[in-house]
Amino acid sequence: MSRRIEPDLELAASLFAALAAATRRGRGIVRDSYGAGEQAAHDIVRSAASSRGLEIRVDALGNLFMTLPGRKRDAPRIIMGSHLDSVPQGGNYDGAAGVVAGVCALTAMRAAGIVPDCDLAVMAIRAEESAWFDIAYLGSAGAFGLLDPQCLSIGRSDNGQSLEATLQQCGFDPCPIRERRPLMDPAHIRAYLELHIEQGPTLVARGLPAAVVSGIRGCKRFRNARCLGEYAHSGAVGRAYRHDAVAATVAFLHHMDGIWRQHEEAGEDLVLTSGELYTDAAMHGPSKIAGETRFVLDIRGLADGIMEAVAAEARAAAARLSGEYRVRIDLGATSDSPAAVMDRRLRSRLLELLETPFEMASGAGHDAAVFAKTGVPSAMIFVRNENGSHNPDEAMSLEDFGVGTRALLRLLLDFPF
Amino acid sequence: MSRRIEPDLELAASLFAALAAATRRGRGIVRDSYGAGEQAAHDIVRSAASSRGLEIRVDALGNLFMTLPGRKRDAPRIIMGSHLDSVPQGGNYDGAAGVVAGVCALTAMRAAGIVPDCDLAVMAIRAEESAWFDIAYLGSAGAFGLLDPQCLSIGRSDNGQSLEATLQQCGFDPCPIRERRPLMDPAHIRAYLELHIEQGPTLVARGLPAAVVSGIRGCKRFRNARCLGEYAHSGAVGRAYRHDAVAATVAFLHHMDGIWRQHEEAGEDLVLTSGELYTDAAMHGPSKIAGETRFVLDIRGLADGIMEAVAAEARAAAARLSGEYRVRIDLGATSDSPAAVMDRRLRSRLLELLETPFEMASGAGHDAAVFAKTGVPSAMIFVRNENGSHNPDEAMSLEDFGVGTRALLRLLLDFPF
Repeated sequence: MSRRIEPDLELAASLFAALAAATRRGRGIVRDSYGAGEQAAHDIVRSAASSRGLEIRVDALGNLFMTLPGRKRDAPRIIMGSHLDSVPQGGNYDGAAGVVAGVCALTAMRAAGIVPDCDLAVMAIRAEESAWFDIAYLGSAGAFGLLDPQCLSIGRSDNGQSLEATLQQCGFDPCPIRERRPLMDPAHIRAYLELHIEQGPTLVARGLPAAVVSGIRGCKRFRNARCLGEYAHSGAVGRAYRHDAVAATVAFLHHMDGIWRQHEEAGEDLVLTSGELYTDAAMHGPSKIAGETRFVLDIRGLADGIMEAVAAEARAAAARLSGEYRVRIDLGATSDSPAAVMDRRLRSRLLELLETPFEMASGAGHDAAVFAKTGVPSAMIFVRNENGSHNPDEAMSLEDFGVGTRALLRLLLDFPF
Repeated sequence: MSRRIEPDLELAASLFAALAAATRRGRGIVRDSYGAGEQAAHDIVRSAASSRGLEIRVDALGNLFMTLPGRKRDAPRIIMGSHLDSVPQGGNYDGAAGVVAGVCALTAMRAAGIVPDCDLAVMAIRAEESAWFDIAYLGSAGAFGLLDPQCLSIGRSDNGQSLEATLQQCGFDPCPIRERRPLMDPAHIRAYLELHIEQGPTLVARGLPAAVVSGIRGCKRFRNARCLGEYAHSGAVGRAYRHDAVAATVAFLHHMDGIWRQHEEAGEDLVLTSGELYTDAAMHGPSKIAGETRFVLDIRGLADGIMEAVAAEARAAAARLSGEYRVRIDLGATSDSPAAVMDRRLRSRLLELLETPFEMASGAGHDAAVFAKTGVPSAMIFVRNENGSHNPDEAMSLEDFGVGTRALLRLLLDFPF
């Protein structure tokens, strides 16, 4: 196949502009899952794809497929895409970039008259952001029949309407979720490819336009950890008689920071974070020893075994420091999402397609993790983005988007490599 | 003088019972400063002292003096006492024990027909607890003309009424505060003696009924410390790019715990506490790196120089760790109250009067610190107390109270030793 074909970046620019214009609310972007904002984004992308000759289909859960038909229509297809919803007051690129990239790649192939080996479909996935329904990967996990039917009763965070009622109101069908009925067969998907803005600062810091994602970090999170001590007068109680919840918590978290350093020095992929930590505002005081803290310990990495080992070390340290500080550090249960390693063959081919090959882990979750979990060979391209994501200041240049989209298009043209 | 005289513990028991009956509100004791609860306590004690022949006088700020006249009425007098107010929902003994002890000692001397060398006065001090007017040692500092006149506009924490209006409503006179006019001359006070329940667990743990106080710890407090970092995604940002306010704060506070250990090992009197520590509930999240913490660092000890050194170490560590963690740890200013060392002669005489001599620092502040600050030779006796103070569960046995009060009485009988 020809290497001269280029993604249509003018189309990309007009789509990003139309998306921002339709879904900006004040400073930020609001594409509420199964709401007016998300639907507006679907309408814009669908119209552009349809007018450029891609086949349109919407599944029972509202996921939108825009397909360039292949020679063998019943052969396993290649899906690319991402989500079109956003967090409240989010940015214009988180999610949308992957859908726009797919559309720009397929419309370029269509315009060049290329008929691929198998169907190539852009999937605009519904409701990836858990900010609205507190479910991770609602659209993609629902399409694979992986959701717990109880999720249908979850209310939307802003208006309280249940997922079931919301789906029905949009004209979609909650039955597949209730019956755990898959709408797609992983065996019939040859690959899943997702372009996404990087949500951290790595590519900006390294001066690189794009990267290949090695894997999506899993998460093992002590969501409701606490330390129980005893309130007492800060001046009147010596160390030997203290049950100081802050001192014990600080010792614990600093110890875990050291554990993280050890794993880093061993070259393992890992990040540890305590993003919530607080004494009880109703009980604490400047001249009191704290009797209680609550905190989160968030463990993420590419290897489930390493995360297990860190959680075990956390439990051991909690027990040891509880004794040392005469408190009870109760970490509670973890909520777990396993790591998803991206397909080795797709990764190495994508790396060859980048001018400066660079591979990095994704710390945030993505729909690609759901596809990988079902056994679909999956890959992701990260595009440089300033100011992080999930905020109005997301900033991706069209040039960098072009670098990532070009790699996506080349990979499609190379199939089967 | 005779050693046969014993403090009247039956009177003590009846006074404690009357105080509890008159000022219990629900589970706890409420003797609100310059309010109905404190006044009820003053009335009970005054009536008992008056009916047993002690002279009664009330100063312009409402401090109550109950005096056993001495042979030389114009010679410097000995004052003993404590405060009669309590924190909201406090216990029956914090403060009151010292006033009752003085009354029981003087009424016993009076009953035995003893005429001391100089006047011996029990001072029931007003408004020691800053819970009501947010002023430390209001009654005693006011009596020495040490208060900032601006304090007259401070509102009471429960009803908002200014100190000035409250004093006037009680029939007292705000003028001495406005004019910084002392009501007592330190040069005319031979000694100040204060019995108080221990507010920590040391005497319970050591199985001792009473102790002599070596000094009252000063306090150097970073009340409004904070650490400013940057909020970011917990999974997507590696250590090198983080500005993690929790990680830096935890490293700082754990370092300061180590500094405390070093001073302890050197035998220095010191306690360090961070009793308030919190991320911003409006901004933090389980999958976010924290961009801000706020915390308190409370440094207490008997030597102002050591507290200075620890505060300097805190500032140095804050600067160093701010660089290491790419955050800004801003400790802010300290609020300081200097340490008050108790009089060496009085302490050694009191130690001789205890069956098991034991000396310890007071971590909490007491009116004795004000007397010591003016140059009056001051001493304190701690009485064993369970469950800490400032709560409804304060528990002091009459036996232990008797041990402390007997030492007080013996000291009075020994004067001049």
